[in-house]
Amino acid sequence: MPATNRQLLLKSRPKDLISRDNFTSVTAPVPELRDGQALAKVHFLSVDPTMRIWMSEREGYMPPVGIGEVMRAGGIAQVIASKNPEFHEGDFVLGLTGFQEYVLLGAGEPVPFRKLPQLPGVPLSAFLGTLGMTGITAYFGMTEVGKPKAGETLVVSAAAGATGSVAGQIGKIHGCRVVGIAGGAEKCAWLTGELGFDHAVDYKKSGWKQELAAACPKGIDIDYENVGGEIMHTVMSRMNPFGRIVLCGLISGYSAEDPGMASFGTVLIKRLRVQGFIVLDYAPRFTEAVTQLAQWMLAGKLKDRQTVVEGLENAPDALAMLFSGGNIGKTVVKL
Amino acid sequence: MPATNRQLLLKSRPKDLISRDNFTSVTAPVPELRDGQALAKVHFLSVDPTMRIWMSEREGYMPPVGIGEVMRAGGIAQVIASKNPEFHEGDFVLGLTGFQEYVLLGAGEPVPFRKLPQLPGVPLSAFLGTLGMTGITAYFGMTEVGKPKAGETLVVSAAAGATGSVAGQIGKIHGCRVVGIAGGAEKCAWLTGELGFDHAVDYKKSGWKQELAAACPKGIDIDYENVGGEIMHTVMSRMNPFGRIVLCGLISGYSAEDPGMASFGTVLIKRLRVQGFIVLDYAPRFTEAVTQLAQWMLAGKLKDRQTVVEGLENAPDALAMLFSGGNIGKTVVKL
Repeated sequence: MPATNRQLLLKSRPKDLISRDNFTSVTAPVPELRDGQALAKVHFLSVDPTMRIWMSEREGYMPPVGIGEVMRAGGIAQVIASKNPEFHEGDFVLGLTGFQEYVLLGAGEPVPFRKLPQLPGVPLSAFLGTLGMTGITAYFGMTEVGKPKAGETLVVSAAAGATGSVAGQIGKIHGCRVVGIAGGAEKCAWLTGELGFDHAVDYKKSGWKQELAAACPKGIDIDYENVGGEIMHTVMSRMNPFGRIVLCGLISGYSAEDPGMASFGTVLIKRLRVQGFIVLDYAPRFTEAVTQLAQWMLAGKLKDRQTVVEGLENAPDALAMLFSGGNIGKTVVKL
Repeated sequence: MPATNRQLLLKSRPKDLISRDNFTSVTAPVPELRDGQALAKVHFLSVDPTMRIWMSEREGYMPPVGIGEVMRAGGIAQVIASKNPEFHEGDFVLGLTGFQEYVLLGAGEPVPFRKLPQLPGVPLSAFLGTLGMTGITAYFGMTEVGKPKAGETLVVSAAAGATGSVAGQIGKIHGCRVVGIAGGAEKCAWLTGELGFDHAVDYKKSGWKQELAAACPKGIDIDYENVGGEIMHTVMSRMNPFGRIVLCGLISGYSAEDPGMASFGTVLIKRLRVQGFIVLDYAPRFTEAVTQLAQWMLAGKLKDRQTVVEGLENAPDALAMLFSGGNIGKTVVKL
């Protein structure tokens, strides 16, 4: 049994960008196991844009992380000791491990840990990406809110990100024309070359709005929206009547200068349906999603790519990278 | 047969407010009837906020009215001569009569005229209000988009208007707590005293946001939105998760200062569904709506109130009044 547990605690709430200074590294004792509990060693941590909200004081779908508490994060851990008949030594589990080396299971966590199946040909960390929260988010966002039909045009913003890249591929599986919006030539080349997107628009290039319009000659039926702001506004102006906007994220932030009410005018005139969407609402159906995603993955229809950052101490940088656009696909931290 | 037909033509597009100067009055000859046509004398004209869009150059769900064309408007007319076997002298018909004294039926109009039934106890002009487009709009907006459930809280903006007053009453019929937002004590007294709203908030009084919050102690489940801007933003901030916004109108205009993108953040976090909504999409089901509305009206569950303006020459003032808030209930022009 290890004696100590390195942890990153939330020290301060970021005003704008996330930095290392928002965290403190501490070494805590590993707690003693009580009946019904198990101890697991963390192998992979997930970093996700929603963690920016957890770091703020804003009430979201989960309460803010308190100052001085272990930073909340999803992760994959392996059981090393157990006084819980459900968990055995060697089991791999998925849950809110937090930014730390060891995590206690059965200690009143808000979302229970679940055991990971062993799937030949599927790397473990895929359960944080394509088969994890981001893949499951894309699955329900597309099937339940976007409802893609063959021949329709789907636009995905932040298309090279963990959720966007899966949402776009699900669009292709359903027979849509899929256009991604991403920042930089490398991401765009990956979307069209590897993932089979019909077109990818680099929003860092001038003239990208015209390029988007040209790439969607029949208008846009579904907007899988991860960004908000000017990108969302531009996509909305090209949408067809009765289009659907899957409002999955607004990572661009909430600038007061954004022409938002004009966008509501577009919603009205084009009879759009905008639906806010949070994956936890579909928790009872996660198994269905993972099974389908894994089938697509094993059939070669769904490709998984990860940006791997090594070391717990670099987890804050991995998180910050999501907002600077440095990552491609799902970003994980390997401990 | 009359020899002349007084008409109001669109002279110029309003920059901001509608005025008499946007129209010219002309006297045209009454056209000769061809086979398949009928001539009808206009008795009532409807004025509706959507006409402000028809007067602009904006492409909406109908094309703009051309400069020099008869101003488009809904109305009720009575057939005085017919070479169409469907229409007989004396029949009352409903359709896009336009701002004029006489209208030709069967002349290639975009929406066909339909005959009005005679319902004892129902005044003719009710077919422009509670049993007309505004009532039908409220009916489908509530039943198809809002989907009210007993015990839920419904907030209606522009609640004393033609659509809002019906939407709120339909909410009461479905067992909702109904709170209206309107401008001025007279309108608010009508909503609670006559229509049975649970509360009415006068947005012209200071402290109205606190009053709205206090009137909705369990939050807001449905926003029947006719206004947009600050009122919509305030209602959205009080909405419950999985709430529905029936985006029926945005009469407040489209100020760039509105904090619209923050509202999209609310849509995301609270998993709201915002749906743009235009009544013409439900045209095949209008009879169903009118039948139900008339049943409610005859049963005393749905009250009809009209602001009547006399004379074709005053139709521009009647239209302008919708934007200055001078009307209560449905506004019609009596010729």
